[in-house]
Amino acid sequence: MEEWLTSLKTETPQQGFHPAVKLARKGVGLTQPDAEVRKKLRPVYAEDADSLTMASQVIAIHYQTIAAANDYWK
Amino acid sequence: MEEWLTSLKTETPQQGFHPAVKLARKGVGLTQPDAEVRKKLRPVYAEDADSLTMASQVIAIHYQTIAAANDYWK
Amino acid sequence: MEEWLTSLKTETPQQGFHPAVKLARKGVGLTQPDAEVRKKLRPVYAEDADSLTMASQVIAIHYQTIAAANDYWK
Amino acid sequence: MEEWLTSLKTETPQQGFHPAVKLARKGVGLTQPDAEVRKKLRPVYAEDADSLTMASQVIAIHYQTIAAANDYWK
Amino acid sequence: MEEWLTSLKTETPQQGFHPAVKLARKGVGLTQPDAEVRKKLRPVYAEDADSLTMASQVIAIHYQTIAAANDYWK
Amino acid sequence: MEEWLTSLKTETPQQGFHPAVKLARKGVGLTQPDAEVRKKLRPVYAEDADSLTMASQVIAIHYQTIAAANDYWK
Repeated sequence: MEEWLTSLKTETPQQGFHPAVKLARKGVGLTQPDAEVRKKLRPVYAEDADSLTMASQVIAIHYQTIAAANDYWK
Repeated sequence: MEEWLTSLKTETPQQGFHPAVKLARKGVGLTQPDAEVRKKLRPVYAEDADSLTMASQVIAIHYQTIAAANDYWK
Repeated sequence: MEEWLTSLKTETPQQGFHPAVKLARKGVGLTQPDAEVRKKLRPVYAEDADSLTMASQVIAIHYQTIAAANDYWK
Repeated sequence: MEEWLTSLKTETPQQGFHPAVKLARKGVGLTQPDAEVRKKLRPVYAEDADSLTMASQVIAIHYQTIAAANDYWK
Repeated sequence: MEEWLTSLKTETPQQGFHPAVKLARKGVGLTQPDAEVRKKLRPVYAEDADSLTMASQVIAIHYQTIAAANDYWK
Repeated sequence: MEEWLTSLKTETPQQGFHPAVKLARKGVGLTQPDAEVRKKLRPVYAEDADSLTMASQVIAIHYQTIAAANDYWK
């Protein structure tokens, strides 16, 4: 099985954003595994203000998880 | 009764994604138990950008729960 | 007063899903107490992909609460 | 000033639902203080499946807060 | 710079609602700094049931933060 | 790589709002990297009540993370 997430730990808060984005996209990928369909949908959400805000919100929820996993990089 | 979730514990963060997806789908399954209806709806949400983002968000909330259950795999 | 929730504690993670579903439905029931109206609305949300995802999300938030209440069944 | 919330503490998980509902409604009340307008809107959301799910979700977030405030009634 | 939030601490759970409402409105204010535009939009959301529920949800998320900041006023 | 977030720590609750807004906007920026497209979308969401509320909600989720990272500025 493809390894796409080895740890929630990152060096910095900024780096913590990447696994959050990856997790958000993986949630879409597991719901719609067909990459062609996802590619076809990209212009639909990437040029819609509310769709972009919704995508940012999923990232925000995952970032909350990543931040807790890293004890907020204290 | 069918056993579909024995534990929230997983070995790795990546494995933690599966119970999160299962819980998200179970929430739909318990709300609409008819598998035929759910099957009929699949092309509707699986080919709609916002629907896919909404599905990813439910997974994100459950993943937050799974990550806390696993002490973030520290 | 009808007793519909005695405890947040359950034996297993799978059993924890039931109070989460019950709490989600109770939130609807307290907002719309008329069972006839709720019954009339059932086919509307139960055959709409996004409505089912929204329902699953409310369950996910309550499940997060139940899981914390059970120390994640560690 | 009208006292509408003295404590987040309740005896039981079921009782904990009431301050959650009150807080959710207060959020609407502070955003739209005109009771006549709110009354006029009631049939709109109370007979719409997604509106009822959205209302239940706000209650779920507040219930999460109330449950934590009561150490999950352990 | 205008000081609009000095602390998350409040005496009571009821008082805790005010910084939550302020934070929710500040999120709108920083996204749309033009007070005239915001004023023009008020009748749109203040007389729409779902818009009012969405506003209440943002307050609920901030109230969760405020409650944790005050150790739930135990 | 451009450094846009060095720490989640801020002196005050009010200052904590800025990284929350930055994180919310970064989630949009990483989903739609084309600044011209984002600029074109601005009048769409900035003059829509529900879009502004959705944006405020993403900020609220990030602010929750920032507040926890700062131990609620106790």
